Amino acid sequence: MPAGQQVEIQVRSTEKEQVVDVTNEVEHHLSRLGLDNGAVMVYCPHTTASVAVNESADPDVGADISRGLAAMVPKLSFRHAEGNSPAHLRAALMGPSVVLPVKEGKLKLGTWQGVYFCEFDGPRERHLWLFALQGL
Amino acid sequence: MPAGQQVEIQVRSTEKEQVVDVTNEVEHHLSRLGLDNGAVMVYCPHTTASVAVNESADPDVGADISRGLAAMVPKLSFRHAEGNSPAHLRAALMGPSVVLPVKEGKLKLGTWQGVYFCEFDGPRERHLWLFALQGL
Amino acid sequence: MPAGQQVEIQVRSTEKEQVVDVTNEVEHHLSRLGLDNGAVMVYCPHTTASVAVNESADPDVGADISRGLAAMVPKLSFRHAEGNSPAHLRAALMGPSVVLPVKEGKLKLGTWQGVYFCEFDGPRERHLWLFALQGL
Repeated sequence: MPAGQQVEIQVRSTEKEQVVDVTNEVEHHLSRLGLDNGAVMVYCPHTTASVAVNESADPDVGADISRGLAAMVPKLSFRHAEGNSPAHLRAALMGPSVVLPVKEGKLKLGTWQGVYFCEFDGPRERHLWLFALQGL
Repeated sequence: MPAGQQVEIQVRSTEKEQVVDVTNEVEHHLSRLGLDNGAVMVYCPHTTASVAVNESADPDVGADISRGLAAMVPKLSFRHAEGNSPAHLRAALMGPSVVLPVKEGKLKLGTWQGVYFCEFDGPRERHLWLFALQGL
Repeated sequence: MPAGQQVEIQVRSTEKEQVVDVTNEVEHHLSRLGLDNGAVMVYCPHTTASVAVNESADPDVGADISRGLAAMVPKLSFRHAEGNSPAHLRAALMGPSVVLPVKEGKLKLGTWQGVYFCEFDGPRERHLWLFALQGL
């Protein structure tokens, strides 16, 4: 792969608000980056979605996070005419990316951690980008 | 520029709580880092301000995010004597930095994404630091 | 130290919800990474804890952030059987890591900034990992 080429992952959300476990996709495509030691940035190029890291063993955790974030949005009269400011707010809060350790070419997460794509304004066809960051 | 030298951007906030679109400033100063492929870290060295990524096409989105974050601060009797714990809380929540993809020397954001400086305790003269992180 | 070897820091939380200032530990162990210029990723491998950056001069700020985050958790009937979804939610919100500038082998934070370990489901024995990311 040419230097500086990013890898793109497709994610299809099926609900308005949803988290989707993408750990396996990230691990699968990581090898295409050719990174030995350092970090992979999982970057979400959307403004009403994000990425997160949390427990993926019990899918109820992801569902609770999705419902919890929705319930945290304050009841305001937002100005943005498209009406999806609650989704923009959550995306800004969660941040556009997570940066994850890579060791000997493999994702090095904590025992219970997985990577979640977080949809706040679906259902939609979405993308995530992977970029290699060099370690020492 | 000497290796490891960071670039500093000045931002002037004019309100107590405000988001300021700094996408053009980040793009403009990025070239001074001499980075070809990798990521730029936009780092906020303050404890009552932060950076965020979200839609910058409609300025109402930024204003909604600023008002939304303010409304999420719980009504507690905070201990910190300076009285600005609501600003510290939001800065901690949003995080001190965003890490953004750079490809062929250019910022590579999603179509609708821009970079916001988020003021939680203004108006003040503020700074953001840019650091290059090497890709592959 | 072999390339790609991360440094591990131990943190002992003594309360259910608590922030612990780990700035000195991060600075102390940073030299073991052998990084001259770039960034250090402070990574939390747990799913009910996180890391944050904020004012560390007045310990009341950290306590206010801890209490503020707890009060932001919505009163929902969460599904996850272990009953600690409020902790998972906060960990997801705060993110698994902070990426901090390093210049000439030293942590380069803002004047008032320190690094906090954030416990949401303690007391426990916890760990943080440090990884070097190369700058230019």
